[in-house]
Amino acid sequence: MPSVETPATYRILDIGTVPAFIGSLPEIRALLGGPPEQWQVQEVGDGNLNLIFIVQGPVGSVCVKQALPYVRAAGASWPMTLERAFFEASYYAAVAPWVGGLIPRIYHYDRELYCTVMERLSPHIILRQGLIAGRRYPNAARDAGEYIARASFFTSDLARPFEHKMDGMALFARNQALVRITVELVFCDPYRVSERNRHTSPQLDQIVAELRGDSRLKVAAAHYGQKFLTDTQALVHGDLHSGSVMVTESDTRVIDPEFAFYGPIGFDLGAFLGNLLLSWYSQPGHATREDSRRAYQQWILEQAAVFWESFRRNFLALWAENAHGDVLPVSMFARAEEASTLEAARAAFVDGLFADMLGFAACKMIRRIAGFAHVIDFDRIGDAVVRAGCEASALAMARSLLIEPAQFRSIQDVLDAVPRMVRH
Amino acid sequence: MPSVETPATYRILDIGTVPAFIGSLPEIRALLGGPPEQWQVQEVGDGNLNLIFIVQGPVGSVCVKQALPYVRAAGASWPMTLERAFFEASYYAAVAPWVGGLIPRIYHYDRELYCTVMERLSPHIILRQGLIAGRRYPNAARDAGEYIARASFFTSDLARPFEHKMDGMALFARNQALVRITVELVFCDPYRVSERNRHTSPQLDQIVAELRGDSRLKVAAAHYGQKFLTDTQALVHGDLHSGSVMVTESDTRVIDPEFAFYGPIGFDLGAFLGNLLLSWYSQPGHATREDSRRAYQQWILEQAAVFWESFRRNFLALWAENAHGDVLPVSMFARAEEASTLEAARAAFVDGLFADMLGFAACKMIRRIAGFAHVIDFDRIGDAVVRAGCEASALAMARSLLIEPAQFRSIQDVLDAVPRMVRH
Repeated sequence: MPSVETPATYRILDIGTVPAFIGSLPEIRALLGGPPEQWQVQEVGDGNLNLIFIVQGPVGSVCVKQALPYVRAAGASWPMTLERAFFEASYYAAVAPWVGGLIPRIYHYDRELYCTVMERLSPHIILRQGLIAGRRYPNAARDAGEYIARASFFTSDLARPFEHKMDGMALFARNQALVRITVELVFCDPYRVSERNRHTSPQLDQIVAELRGDSRLKVAAAHYGQKFLTDTQALVHGDLHSGSVMVTESDTRVIDPEFAFYGPIGFDLGAFLGNLLLSWYSQPGHATREDSRRAYQQWILEQAAVFWESFRRNFLALWAENAHGDVLPVSMFARAEEASTLEAARAAFVDGLFADMLGFAACKMIRRIAGFAHVIDFDRIGDAVVRAGCEASALAMARSLLIEPAQFRSIQDVLDAVPRMVRH
Repeated sequence: MPSVETPATYRILDIGTVPAFIGSLPEIRALLGGPPEQWQVQEVGDGNLNLIFIVQGPVGSVCVKQALPYVRAAGASWPMTLERAFFEASYYAAVAPWVGGLIPRIYHYDRELYCTVMERLSPHIILRQGLIAGRRYPNAARDAGEYIARASFFTSDLARPFEHKMDGMALFARNQALVRITVELVFCDPYRVSERNRHTSPQLDQIVAELRGDSRLKVAAAHYGQKFLTDTQALVHGDLHSGSVMVTESDTRVIDPEFAFYGPIGFDLGAFLGNLLLSWYSQPGHATREDSRRAYQQWILEQAAVFWESFRRNFLALWAENAHGDVLPVSMFARAEEASTLEAARAAFVDGLFADMLGFAACKMIRRIAGFAHVIDFDRIGDAVVRAGCEASALAMARSLLIEPAQFRSIQDVLDAVPRMVRH
């Protein structure tokens, strides 16, 4: 039962109606091969907001993602605009020229059904699932860093005249429903009493109460909440955690950009880094007699460094070659001896992104432990005492990132701190 | 001869056609009284971009402002979108509920003629003219500070749910032509060789050449250029210098908001403060045997303090009463003992606006001396040597503001530095 007003042309697809819909699209029909009657359709969605169908034909397969007019996890009681599908399609279209094969191929967006037909990623799995399973994906962190560098650089005022960004802002400024979710669930609710919050109780009751009474922490979180709403550096994905990255041993794809808007680059960086750190802290909960997960934790930390260094290297390299924007214009530093000035100014800009990454990472970590939407990295830990121990350690790290930013000058500083924050 | 494509319904008004246009608007017709044949029309525009008509009837009078499709000062060779009239009208509409009598009453906006019919301000004069004449306006600085506080606070994420701001951003993100002017003329051209630049030559040749070779200065200016494009704190006027304020002894009105966009609050603060400082440095050029202007300079400095203190006091008072936005939400600091935390965080936010104000003030000062569009405060100084001396002092102050920000912790620090920067 739809809970927001839906256009008359909208209807919820099911495995019975998907073939007729796809059959009306000649290019996709050709891609699948055979007549629609031969196609096999499965609904595989496990997310909060959408239906996901896999359509398998004799020749090929596609993925069909349709927005539902409510938050699936909350049932029809939490209505959710369908327009997010349009913003997701708009984001893919905006970054596609810049990010190469790091997103799925998009075949079709249907404005009436709020539905995207895209490449079926196989045998990819969600990175978060792989991290819980203790599997290593040698390229994932490097690719994620490159992805954010490319997507954010080319949609920023560093790369292109600001008019491109303002055109995009005019469009994505309409994606208010999903920005509202982030504002409340990431930057507000975890720091106040709210019916939507939950935490491992009673084990974390005291720690969560302390967090909600910690003025310095809350002012720092509010500072990042403000930055989220006012620092329109680039088109950002808006939800780039390890559940929005699909991987194989060699391939990486970023998915689910429906939270896209113009915001701080550090928000995407922090989402990915924060979720790597959550994974690190969750590992004891997934240890077995055979595998303590210690070596795997070390690998995760290395990936955090790989991620940041990949972002930094790619971002600066793109800037060196594509400085056609209005921020730090090359024409102001045109003399040969000013090359080093420009280089230093760009490095300082990237240092600012590093600091933002840590602040946003902390906010993302806290919301997953003290807020509404948790992560399966922790939720899959059956023993509440073990889980609470992991979560308490992650909270300690997040707190340090937020209130002692001067302690973290380099990614190495972060890596060094992670094990120190483990609470026993 | 229009130089941009204009809609078929657009035509340039003149004193012959204004009465028929106004005559078609019943409310304004009533306000003027009598039949259109009795109205007297004068064109009084001396700005760069628009026609300004004063229409006087037997009962009342109005002002008619029409956008031209080119920059008047540059002739038809510099085309300029008419849409700026729409953004001006949109800005007035957005701030009118909040700023009381500090803007003119707006009677009508005509979308076909790109024309606003508004209150005729009389006997008001442009504040800049008054400052050149050495006249004192006891309320102007206080009112300007209150104006910026009200207009910016209520259009920010501090006052209202962010959706209001995003709606506004979707609209004002189209005002690209005028933002383009600011980006180039304020933040780029003065710092590079450009045909559009001019300066008092040869007296300032050396100083301007040094400025264009000063890496620290340019990096600081570029930082504010970036902030201008990415820090969407509030709906800002975009051109709030002393030429955009009309005054009498008791009344103050802010006009000409066609550069309006969502940007940093410090940009409006800096425009006003920077132009007060330019006025201060220009005063020796307007001294006479009878009046050295020393006492008047002291008054100007006092007004700079009055301006900032008025802004600060009003902004914090509005925040205390109207914190209904998503930034620093009160619900996160709900316990009684957290009132002081919230107060300190708000004060820190305003400290950030102070720093921004100084940086933007410096950029605005430099562009008026080394860029395209100068101010009559200096241009009216006939003796080039005297003028160059005044301008060199102002440039020294601007440079100090940009590269030694730590020297300026309070408005008193600024006032103390102003006379020290005089070059003899």
